[in-house]
Amino acid sequence: MEEKDMNAIENLMLSHKSVRRFTDQPVSDELLERVVRCGQHAATSEFIQAYTIIKVTDPKVKAAIYNEVTSQKPILSAPVFLVFCADVSRLLRASEMNQRKAPESYLEYTETFLMASVDTAIAAQNTVIAAESEGVGCTYIGGIRNNLPKVMELLSIPNGVYPLFGLVMGYPLENSDEAAKPRLPLDVVLKEEKYHTDGEEEQIRAYDEVIRQYYIDRTDGKRDETWSMQMADFVEKPQRPFLKEVLGKQGFLLK
Amino acid sequence: MEEKDMNAIENLMLSHKSVRRFTDQPVSDELLERVVRCGQHAATSEFIQAYTIIKVTDPKVKAAIYNEVTSQKPILSAPVFLVFCADVSRLLRASEMNQRKAPESYLEYTETFLMASVDTAIAAQNTVIAAESEGVGCTYIGGIRNNLPKVMELLSIPNGVYPLFGLVMGYPLENSDEAAKPRLPLDVVLKEEKYHTDGEEEQIRAYDEVIRQYYIDRTDGKRDETWSMQMADFVEKPQRPFLKEVLGKQGFLLK
Repeated sequence: MEEKDMNAIENLMLSHKSVRRFTDQPVSDELLERVVRCGQHAATSEFIQAYTIIKVTDPKVKAAIYNEVTSQKPILSAPVFLVFCADVSRLLRASEMNQRKAPESYLEYTETFLMASVDTAIAAQNTVIAAESEGVGCTYIGGIRNNLPKVMELLSIPNGVYPLFGLVMGYPLENSDEAAKPRLPLDVVLKEEKYHTDGEEEQIRAYDEVIRQYYIDRTDGKRDETWSMQMADFVEKPQRPFLKEVLGKQGFLLK
Repeated sequence: MEEKDMNAIENLMLSHKSVRRFTDQPVSDELLERVVRCGQHAATSEFIQAYTIIKVTDPKVKAAIYNEVTSQKPILSAPVFLVFCADVSRLLRASEMNQRKAPESYLEYTETFLMASVDTAIAAQNTVIAAESEGVGCTYIGGIRNNLPKVMELLSIPNGVYPLFGLVMGYPLENSDEAAKPRLPLDVVLKEEKYHTDGEEEQIRAYDEVIRQYYIDRTDGKRDETWSMQMADFVEKPQRPFLKEVLGKQGFLLK
């Protein structure tokens, strides 16, 4: 592959921005299928391909999700709204196709939940990058986890499956020249040989000022906060405390 | 972006193969940092960037992982061996930097574990695609979860962090013209409006024969098995049954 193409992929990634406002231009079925196929070609643990993606177009279903699960306008306005589900039920059916029966414990293991969740996440990320390479913007919608029972009722989700996140896609309304939101300094996240936090506080303080300025610039000074302040606020909130029980009802995380 | 570039990204993804055998050519620090930065620019829930990546070069540590965790030769032979860790401990330190203290429950929530694991997985997948765009092959090493206590001891992993998977990287030994391993038919994984399994059995049976032939072709007929047979075998195995307890000791998944 020419170096120009490679830099194009990296440039694409480094300029990633979640897109929440879209034009009316539809995303063609052909393009959607192409990017989902790209998603399928991500690595998969033990070849399990443990995900199912549900394309939701029914306006009544979208409205119910908006009203009862997570009030994010892109769910209503985006040309494409997908729900990525971690799915091990298909493996159980595959067993039955061979006159075999998986032990009940298979579904219950924490490892099973984790393996399927990771498979789903990396398939989704390939889908996102492929879409972005076609000029289609995306945003993940973790908010569907606010009310999984409602989502699962709307989408007829069986045992052994759970909706992990939504994904909205469409052609961005604005072609923003704005820089992507800065990430933590590389040295904070990439360590040699062992985990350590040497120098981390200084690095985060410096990053805090970068983020503070980023917010100030984008909000005409109205938002004045650092990354670490934002994190301090976030970790004080209850984190979907019902999730374990809801997943347990789907058979997950019992072991 | 030119259409040629976009097709290049999709072609790259559709031809993905896990690479386990490498030349002696090192992966430059500059390239590694570049692809990890690409990883950082994946989306992150609530901007938490909840991962730490440890680059392991110490041959004694690699040998210990090979001998006591997962006997996968690429750990020893690959120019680069990374361990991707889900990390929420940094958020707790960020709180403390603001004279605040996260509630103990923050670490314990299933949602916290899931959010950090997903952040880590999608960052890793960006890293993989960026590396592949540079001609660097990769393989995920989920096998580090065979013995997390040993990995965590070797890498000095604190509470609030857990190693999710390894990633080996390097220039592939063979430039294989072989096709990528076929994925499930699109209709099996992509559904309209609701989850359903209409037609799934027929689709899987057809796919089974594609996979059977794929294995037969690659092993001179020695390996004769279908996807669903492979899944039936897999789900009968215990799935790292100790994982929940080990994660619990790191503070995770208690709620």
